[in-house]
Amino acid sequence: MSNGTLILMRHGESEWNASNQFTGWVDVALTDKGRAEATRAGELLVEHDLLPDVLYTSLLRRAITTANIALDAADRIWIPVVRDWRLNERHYGALQGLNKADTLAKFGEEQFMLWRRSYDTPPPPIEPDSEYSQTNDPRYADLPEVPLTECLKDVVERLIPYFESDIAADLKAGKTVLIAAHGNSLRALVKYLDGISDADIAALNIPTGNPLRYDLDDNLKPLNPGGTYLDPEAAAAGAAAVAAQGKK
Amino acid sequence: MSNGTLILMRHGESEWNASNQFTGWVDVALTDKGRAEATRAGELLVEHDLLPDVLYTSLLRRAITTANIALDAADRIWIPVVRDWRLNERHYGALQGLNKADTLAKFGEEQFMLWRRSYDTPPPPIEPDSEYSQTNDPRYADLPEVPLTECLKDVVERLIPYFESDIAADLKAGKTVLIAAHGNSLRALVKYLDGISDADIAALNIPTGNPLRYDLDDNLKPLNPGGTYLDPEAAAAGAAAVAAQGKK
Repeated sequence: MSNGTLILMRHGESEWNASNQFTGWVDVALTDKGRAEATRAGELLVEHDLLPDVLYTSLLRRAITTANIALDAADRIWIPVVRDWRLNERHYGALQGLNKADTLAKFGEEQFMLWRRSYDTPPPPIEPDSEYSQTNDPRYADLPEVPLTECLKDVVERLIPYFESDIAADLKAGKTVLIAAHGNSLRALVKYLDGISDADIAALNIPTGNPLRYDLDDNLKPLNPGGTYLDPEAAAAGAAAVAAQGKK
Repeated sequence: MSNGTLILMRHGESEWNASNQFTGWVDVALTDKGRAEATRAGELLVEHDLLPDVLYTSLLRRAITTANIALDAADRIWIPVVRDWRLNERHYGALQGLNKADTLAKFGEEQFMLWRRSYDTPPPPIEPDSEYSQTNDPRYADLPEVPLTECLKDVVERLIPYFESDIAADLKAGKTVLIAAHGNSLRALVKYLDGISDADIAALNIPTGNPLRYDLDDNLKPLNPGGTYLDPEAAAAGAAAVAAQGKK
């Protein structure tokens, strides 16, 4: 039985990455830098002879567009695509739309880091009629309830059952699976794959636009724990930049 | 029971539309003009309040990219996507890659129009080892046999069973279905929907990047025979331009 290969790709820089705002489920576009990162990600797939057989994305355009650009660069834009809200970024509650540096200054570092990196403490819920709420967004019309906030634990609880019920079958069939998603939905997945504790996941950051490869055994356990970034130098620099967000 | 709405969208101008070459299954990109046409198509969908619930595309990047750009412009890039080779352009056989004007000059108008518009006479088959053959293209690895040439009848015979087995269910469920495809695969579909004869289909041309809407009854018969172009003026001009291809 052949083993599956999983490629995790966080979207390239978005407009709100650039403006240092909490994004969550707000559907912002990529910047030109983000589009260039996506092209580079596609080139890295080719250089490593790592051609995806199937793509899974969130319902957010920054992940979808990153995947489209990367796959076009890799001459794989024709592969099957599955989109699912369970790959979405963590819903950032009432923080959505706020500037990260302003929020840090207003609430102090302890509260700021609790909201950003606590495993089970969500930010305050967003008002359903906020311009940054997704309560009336047609893409979520089939959900029983649209979240008003989420902590990382909530993301784990929606994402991992989906991974096990849908994505796992493609991996067990030996396919190379590309997941184009977000900082926190990918942290949830890495936590599961690598068996990282609720406490230790706080320190793990995932850079934008740099594919992370996992070679999996028949039980979908990583043969390369922690995964392998296709561009290791950029990954180290990018993770440090993510960790420093909010700092002036 | 609600009725389905079908939107047919031919890709925007491709590099080989611009250079007047037979394209078929060769996977050429859009031009800047083609990308602008795709954006305009998405704006037309919004202006007509015609928001697709699901997208079907061929496996060719000019159709896929047109759909991606149009849906991004319409804020529907997140809808489910199905890609299938049976929506591909007609395989143009040994003509793939040739300049249309050169071909017309070399073979004469009668032979040229026979290859372009005959219902059941395919062009000569392409050599499997031609640079413009798709015999070893990985996207067709699951096909029992990759075509070496096709006439329009061949396209009807591969496409209509797929329409009936897969796309029809979404329409019967009342969905708005967008098909992003090609001049000849859409001619095959229009022939079927409107019951056009083998002879009369020769005169029907479909312009690029202008969505064509069909409102269908419960038996998937058009309530508006011939369909309705969202931009009727551009459609008339565009169809005339397609009909004149090959002319200097």
